[in-house]
Amino acid sequence: MHTLTQLKKYSAELVDLHHTLALMQWDQEVRMPRRAAEGRAGQFATLSALAHRREVSPELGALLAGGEAHKESLSVEDRALLRVMRRSYDQNTKLPEEFVAEFSRLTSQAQMAWLEAREQSDFAIFQPLLERLVVLSRQQAEYLGYAAHPYDALLDLYEEGLTTARVAGMFGELQAPLVELVRRFSGRLTPLSFAEPFPQSGQERFAEHLLVAMGFDFSRGCLARSPHPFTTTLGHHDRRITNRYAPTSLDFIFGALHEGGHALYEQGIDERLANSHLDDGVSLGIHESQSRLWENVVGRSRPFWQRFFPELQKAFPAQFAHTGLDDFIRGINAVTSGLIRVDADEVTYNLHVLIRFEIEKGLIEGSLGVADLPRIWRDKYRQYLGVEVESDADGVLQDIHWAHGSFGYFPTYTIGNLAAAQIWEGYKKYDPTFTQTLADGNLAKIKEWLVREIHSHGSVHLPEELLARVTGAPLSAQPFLAYLEEKFGTLAG
Amino acid sequence: MHTLTQLKKYSAELVDLHHTLALMQWDQEVRMPRRAAEGRAGQFATLSALAHRREVSPELGALLAGGEAHKESLSVEDRALLRVMRRSYDQNTKLPEEFVAEFSRLTSQAQMAWLEAREQSDFAIFQPLLERLVVLSRQQAEYLGYAAHPYDALLDLYEEGLTTARVAGMFGELQAPLVELVRRFSGRLTPLSFAEPFPQSGQERFAEHLLVAMGFDFSRGCLARSPHPFTTTLGHHDRRITNRYAPTSLDFIFGALHEGGHALYEQGIDERLANSHLDDGVSLGIHESQSRLWENVVGRSRPFWQRFFPELQKAFPAQFAHTGLDDFIRGINAVTSGLIRVDADEVTYNLHVLIRFEIEKGLIEGSLGVADLPRIWRDKYRQYLGVEVESDADGVLQDIHWAHGSFGYFPTYTIGNLAAAQIWEGYKKYDPTFTQTLADGNLAKIKEWLVREIHSHGSVHLPEELLARVTGAPLSAQPFLAYLEEKFGTLAG
Repeated sequence: MHTLTQLKKYSAELVDLHHTLALMQWDQEVRMPRRAAEGRAGQFATLSALAHRREVSPELGALLAGGEAHKESLSVEDRALLRVMRRSYDQNTKLPEEFVAEFSRLTSQAQMAWLEAREQSDFAIFQPLLERLVVLSRQQAEYLGYAAHPYDALLDLYEEGLTTARVAGMFGELQAPLVELVRRFSGRLTPLSFAEPFPQSGQERFAEHLLVAMGFDFSRGCLARSPHPFTTTLGHHDRRITNRYAPTSLDFIFGALHEGGHALYEQGIDERLANSHLDDGVSLGIHESQSRLWENVVGRSRPFWQRFFPELQKAFPAQFAHTGLDDFIRGINAVTSGLIRVDADEVTYNLHVLIRFEIEKGLIEGSLGVADLPRIWRDKYRQYLGVEVESDADGVLQDIHWAHGSFGYFPTYTIGNLAAAQIWEGYKKYDPTFTQTLADGNLAKIKEWLVREIHSHGSVHLPEELLARVTGAPLSAQPFLAYLEEKFGTLAG
Repeated sequence: MHTLTQLKKYSAELVDLHHTLALMQWDQEVRMPRRAAEGRAGQFATLSALAHRREVSPELGALLAGGEAHKESLSVEDRALLRVMRRSYDQNTKLPEEFVAEFSRLTSQAQMAWLEAREQSDFAIFQPLLERLVVLSRQQAEYLGYAAHPYDALLDLYEEGLTTARVAGMFGELQAPLVELVRRFSGRLTPLSFAEPFPQSGQERFAEHLLVAMGFDFSRGCLARSPHPFTTTLGHHDRRITNRYAPTSLDFIFGALHEGGHALYEQGIDERLANSHLDDGVSLGIHESQSRLWENVVGRSRPFWQRFFPELQKAFPAQFAHTGLDDFIRGINAVTSGLIRVDADEVTYNLHVLIRFEIEKGLIEGSLGVADLPRIWRDKYRQYLGVEVESDADGVLQDIHWAHGSFGYFPTYTIGNLAAAQIWEGYKKYDPTFTQTLADGNLAKIKEWLVREIHSHGSVHLPEELLARVTGAPLSAQPFLAYLEEKFGTLAG
């Protein structure tokens, strides 16, 4: 099919441009000299504009229509390529250029205002920008279109096919059991604290060691330092991660496992999907399921540390010589009703997300006003987590997402947590002696199953489809709740 | 002038694309995972093609013609911008697309063949590729055009305005005196050798220290490791260098001074030339004059090391505790008739270049055949340097330039060496107490003069013009010969 050949060439060229943009961002985070920022922004704008012109070109529109006219005769993968490219083309062409430019200008300003507001813990600095961003996001939803609720249009940007009703149902299942679990386990497990700092080179070496054990392929990726850990793709054989190293925190371990999980997903995509729009994780939620599976389900489990704790003790004798495995496990799983989402444990985490979901939904449908957010934030944290928010910096201003203009992103974190537990149930059926597998450090077995069932497919299947193929069921909160109940019941004795 | 505004916008966009390509190459050398090479080559090709389309577009041709119609009314800088963009446009449009594609394919193959040939020290592996490259290079010269000699067209690619006659004249002045200097000084100074390896972190720290002392601005650049040191520009405020670290060699010092010299040139370009074709060193020869001035004229001088040798001793006591300053200076200036250009000292270096010039001229004019090169190489090394070439790997196969399809590049090395000495004479007139300036480590004074006289102008003036402005004379071999005579006469006592 000539059209498909042309479409694949078009896809490959766009993918090259996006990987180039990703290289620019990677370099900006890990290496770029301080004063180069403005010049880099200009280069980024030049290349983005080139890519954008190709993304909205009538030529691409015609190729897509040509391909769609022969959809029935196409392979599953070619149909998926059409789906993904059509989705991106529609998202790009539905938004008028002036709108995109205004949105982009506004988010630049909003990020600066947010930084200042957070520094001064003064919501009023951010408020007018956020008000304008909410207006534009509602406009964005109108441009993109939706069936039931304007917030649907925004959710779909991050998780194809996700709806407000679906997210509300998910949290409906979660909310009461989670509040109850928090009540039962909060404060029952003693967190770890360290008087002696971890030497940074030792942290890096141990993070690398865990990544190798997970099966991260250093001939197809690398590990660098950056202020905020992230995973990025610069090419089919070039999937990179960053990590951060603080003196007395275990972030270096859980950061490496988390980003390693994302990177394994990317590295596991089949080579036949290389240089195409399918050479990518299918959604943020599924991506997060992979990072959370390694960080939490595997990486905070007792059998995993049966294998790795002796090595950790050996690597950091000053910190761990007098700590036993059980204290360590309880410490890394301590449940604490806290104020900060990114520091939250597995039990409380999704309540933080629930609060953001309720607020976003309210803002987009117009039932909440931006001016009321600090008060609403305090009320919800008191109600769901039983904590008092003392300052906006540790409250409504803690996340950068809204300053990025990202409404609809947060729920994918919870999807990731639920999907991780559900996928792990699938794995346990495949490997009933999984406890021994973990205790043996045979992480290759887990990785290979994930590659076969999830990673290799890239973006070929829709997120819900993929999950149903792997687990035999649509996304549900039950596996996650059962996982928490069993794990924390055992830990708390 | 509307046309000039458009031209500057066009220039800025092209410069952004070229800086992006430079980022890709930088990353490839310093960070990219091994298996990403093929994908990166594809991304590079995609972006190169995009840039190339803009470089040969009729739109650019029209803008140039429009600007040139009003040349007289333009500022010096706007005229220079027209000159540089016209030159690049002509070079790009004179070569047919199929020719460029064939040349590019051939150089890829030639580089692989050259690697293998050098590994096996077997010229026959490289010979057929080199024969084809010579044919294409002669064709390239015909496409580009020349007044007197086809090699002129190729020389001009690297050094605007350079001719075969000019290079022949330069070597005519140099050859006999150099052969005589080699005879007098070869073996008279004892080279340094080290039993104890230099710790790599110490090498990096010392290299950084020298770069800071020279005035390299780390807020506008950085230093990384790579197999072959180089300097690159990723933006007006982003000029980066790499260095290499071997266990028992002083390359870390002279590599840093050399690349630092290139980078100071780039960092010194005036900000008003940012984001334009003028924001670049004007030619390879002038660029090399800056690297050689810091590496050799400054960096192998006695007063420089009066200041820095105590620090070097302190940084590496195991290597230097029992070495005196005078032995060190003689050691880093030892004259040796050798086989390898990149290891050559200041006295023998240009004889290596002369040999390459004579061969390139012969190949391009057709008076030499590729099959005869190994024999000719041996003859010339015997005649000019008095050494026997034992293997082609250490002979005709030692440089990668021809495998890159670069004929006409080598002479710029000698231009750099001559210009460095001539520029230094200019500096000595400005600062008659230069010996004290060096001994005080007041390198800022030297740097500031270079910035004012050379760096700040970017590509505004033609290379010969720039040199004449700074030194009051056209390029000549005499300052260099006088410099060698004085320096080595003193060193050899």
